[in-house]
Amino acid sequence: MKKDYTQLGKQLGYQFNNESLLKQALTHRSAKGAHNERLEFIGDSLLGMFVAEALYFNFPKATEGELTRMRSQIVRGQTLTKIAKAFELSNWLVLGPGEMKSGGFRRDSILEDAVEAIIGAVYLDSDIEQCKKFVLGLVEEYLAAVDPSKALKDPKTRLQEWLQSRQQPLPVYEVIETTGQAHNQMFTVECRLETGESMVAKGSSRRKAEQAAAEKALEVITK
Amino acid sequence: MKKDYTQLGKQLGYQFNNESLLKQALTHRSAKGAHNERLEFIGDSLLGMFVAEALYFNFPKATEGELTRMRSQIVRGQTLTKIAKAFELSNWLVLGPGEMKSGGFRRDSILEDAVEAIIGAVYLDSDIEQCKKFVLGLVEEYLAAVDPSKALKDPKTRLQEWLQSRQQPLPVYEVIETTGQAHNQMFTVECRLETGESMVAKGSSRRKAEQAAAEKALEVITK
Repeated sequence: MKKDYTQLGKQLGYQFNNESLLKQALTHRSAKGAHNERLEFIGDSLLGMFVAEALYFNFPKATEGELTRMRSQIVRGQTLTKIAKAFELSNWLVLGPGEMKSGGFRRDSILEDAVEAIIGAVYLDSDIEQCKKFVLGLVEEYLAAVDPSKALKDPKTRLQEWLQSRQQPLPVYEVIETTGQAHNQMFTVECRLETGESMVAKGSSRRKAEQAAAEKALEVITK
Repeated sequence: MKKDYTQLGKQLGYQFNNESLLKQALTHRSAKGAHNERLEFIGDSLLGMFVAEALYFNFPKATEGELTRMRSQIVRGQTLTKIAKAFELSNWLVLGPGEMKSGGFRRDSILEDAVEAIIGAVYLDSDIEQCKKFVLGLVEEYLAAVDPSKALKDPKTRLQEWLQSRQQPLPVYEVIETTGQAHNQMFTVECRLETGESMVAKGSSRRKAEQAAAEKALEVITK
C-alpha cells in the first residue's frame, strides 16, 4: 500500500518538496533503508532552540531557571507524544518486524523521535525560517498553556509533592563530598529515595547541589 | 574606567549595533543591573543547534550517537572556557564584589556562561544567519579537531578507561528494576563506583540502561 505523503503534509501544514525526507523521518531504525535517527538529532536541537527563543520573548521577566523549566515542560517526551498522536503518526510509522507489536512507552518513544525527525526533515527540505514557522505551529497550544507558576517551583519542591501525592516517604539529602576552598567550593550531594534509587549531583552550594540531585531524581522517577 | 566594547567586538569578529547587549552578556548576576542569565539561556540553545547542524553535514555517515557525543565534546564547559580565555574575557567580566576573588572552576563556569551569553547577544543584535556565522567562527578549530574515533567510544568504555587511568576499581552495574513485558520492557540499572557514588538510569535493554548509567557517572566524575 503506497502511503500518500502529500496528504500527511497537508495535515502537518508543510508540503515537502522532497517527500522521501518525510518518509525517512517516519522510519524507525528497526526498518530497512534510511531511518530517522540523524534527522531526530538535528530536529531535537532545532525544537529546543525555537522553543527557547519563543519563551525568551514571551516571558520577558522570567529568570533563566524559569525559562529552562518552561522549556522542559514543552520539549519533554510527553508533549511530543501528544503532538504525534494528534497527527495520528502511528499510522504512518515505518517499523521493522520486531517493533510492530511494541506498545506503551516504547511506542511513545518512537513517536516522540518521529516528531523530532520531522522537524529535522522540514529544515533540510526548506530553510530555518520555514522550519521555525512549522515548529511554532506544532507547539503553539503548549506554548500558550505553559504555566510559569508551575515552572516556578523548584525541583526539591516538585519531588516532594510528587512523592507525597503517592504516599511515599520524603527523600534524604546528604552531602557526600565537598572540595575547594572558601570562594570556590563544590558540593556533592546524594538524594536517596525510599525505593533505593540514589542520585548524585554537584553544585557550588549545598542548596544548588540538592536541587540538581532532586532534578535528576524527578527525571528518573517520572520517565 | 570605561571599557572599549568596540575593541572587544573587533576581537570577537562581530561589531554590535547595541553595545549594551555585549556589556550585559559579560555581566554576572552578582553585579548590579542587567545580567547575562537570560542571554545565556538563548545562547546555549543556539550554540547547540548550530554545532548539531555543522556536525550533521560534516559527518554524513555518523550515527546519531556519534553526532551526540561529538557535539558534547564541542559544547562542553571545557571548550567554552578555552574560547573565553582566548578572548581574555576575564578582563571584561562585570562581577559583584562577592565573585571578584573567586577562581578555579567557579571562574571557569562564569566564563562559559559569558560565552553562551555573547552568542545570545549577537543573535538579538542581528539575526540568525549572522549569529550562525559568529558561532561557527568561535568553534571552528574545535569542529575541525573533533575526533569521531574518540566519539565512537561508548560511555561504559570511556568510564572504564577513565577509572583505569587513575588506578581506580571498575564500576559495578546492577539491574535494580525491570518493568513491562516481552516487547515492552524497561530496565533500571545502578552503576556504583568505589567512591560510593551511585548513578541510576533506565533503558529499553539492560545494555542501554548500563550505558546511560555510565554516561551519568562520567558526567558526575568529570565535571
